[in-house]
Amino acid sequence: MIKVFKIGGNVIDNMEALDIFLSAFAAVEGKKVLVHGGGRIATAVSSAMGIKPVMVDGRRVTDRETLDVVIMVYAGLVNKTISSKLNAAGCQAAGLCGADACLVLSEKRAVGAVDYGFVGDPLQGGVNTAFLTALTDGGTVPVIAPITMDGKGQLLNTNADTVAQAIAVALSQADETELIYCFEHNGVLRDINDKDSVIPVITKDNYVDLRESGVVASGMIPKIDNAFSAVSGGVGKVRICNSRDFSEGTLIM
Amino acid sequence: MIKVFKIGGNVIDNMEALDIFLSAFAAVEGKKVLVHGGGRIATAVSSAMGIKPVMVDGRRVTDRETLDVVIMVYAGLVNKTISSKLNAAGCQAAGLCGADACLVLSEKRAVGAVDYGFVGDPLQGGVNTAFLTALTDGGTVPVIAPITMDGKGQLLNTNADTVAQAIAVALSQADETELIYCFEHNGVLRDINDKDSVIPVITKDNYVDLRESGVVASGMIPKIDNAFSAVSGGVGKVRICNSRDFSEGTLIM
Repeated sequence: MIKVFKIGGNVIDNMEALDIFLSAFAAVEGKKVLVHGGGRIATAVSSAMGIKPVMVDGRRVTDRETLDVVIMVYAGLVNKTISSKLNAAGCQAAGLCGADACLVLSEKRAVGAVDYGFVGDPLQGGVNTAFLTALTDGGTVPVIAPITMDGKGQLLNTNADTVAQAIAVALSQADETELIYCFEHNGVLRDINDKDSVIPVITKDNYVDLRESGVVASGMIPKIDNAFSAVSGGVGKVRICNSRDFSEGTLIM
Repeated sequence: MIKVFKIGGNVIDNMEALDIFLSAFAAVEGKKVLVHGGGRIATAVSSAMGIKPVMVDGRRVTDRETLDVVIMVYAGLVNKTISSKLNAAGCQAAGLCGADACLVLSEKRAVGAVDYGFVGDPLQGGVNTAFLTALTDGGTVPVIAPITMDGKGQLLNTNADTVAQAIAVALSQADETELIYCFEHNGVLRDINDKDSVIPVITKDNYVDLRESGVVASGMIPKIDNAFSAVSGGVGKVRICNSRDFSEGTLIM
């Protein structure tokens, strides 16, 4: 049994929320992996360096300068902040990114209507599970920043939800696996203004209704799509829940 | 037998020199570890972010903002650039810093005549050799950025030569160990303007003369002192040599 947790920008940007999550995460028994996103620090560093965000059709593009910033912030500052806090709490953690030991091989996203720049999508079969398993079997928690590389060593900015999904799917081939997306809400909410309106289970069936009725919209859709990809890829249990208390939340099945 | 290599800023700042070193390093057989320094990128990033270097008595001080920059640059950009190049060359590398898995525990330097800020010195017995050995026994090359932490999780900027020395000394307790400091010269030179004037061997005896006569001065002194600490700590062989060809150089004994 192995648990893959993912925390995103809203947790990372709030030091109190991050500390609460990390305490609870450190106390989780058994084998576990943590994938983290970036947060607003990259935007702050970019703007402090005078790098203007490049937007095409409303989408952010990772140009070469921005790539350097996300490598510095995600794989450097955020990753080492998390790793040092876990290690200080007695949880042996190793901060890595997807490029290390070819943990998550990806390919640069093809230029279509939009050229996203140095953005990568994980390759099917591109996760080094042998290396991950050697770490977790030895009692070490891999803490993984969402920077990956292609086979030629080009570093690529990668969606952290997708990295977590790819890792969970790969690990599920050999071990019972749970994927836990942690964020600032108690789960997928029926009413964004009512924190108690958690939808307990989302299936392919009710997901159609939830989308058509507009209950689930915008930012939640890619997250839930990633969760469904994990389920269909073989991950036994997939949940979306609160980073402060990940005992419940929304089960995706 | 395990080899600990260290490369410094002059190699990292020169992409051609870095590529030449990494090709040669990837081809070295057997167990190996790479410790790297920082280079001028941190200064460039600091100045792009408008952070003014804080100097006290001619020494650079690591204030909180500068600490964030060195974490980003050393443990992020430089570390992942090296790791991705090695992995692409077929050498399985894992980019880490001294805080990961408590690889190198340190203590914040005491405030004396100068307050160096967030600078750490490795603690005696503070290297996690079990974790390092698990990696190298499994065929993985640890690539280590010179950011360490104290026992409470405070990240600290640490001299890379000292990190390499502490790691080599710790590993030498259980295995035959060689420490190889690689830089832009062919070794310790008798005449800085004559690249062929390599001093083949420096011992405690001739070191006194070399210092008194001024042949060895300024920046070389802390490096040679670190090398002597490694020798007296039990490292079987310590050399200072060229990053482009590390077959010879100066032997410290």
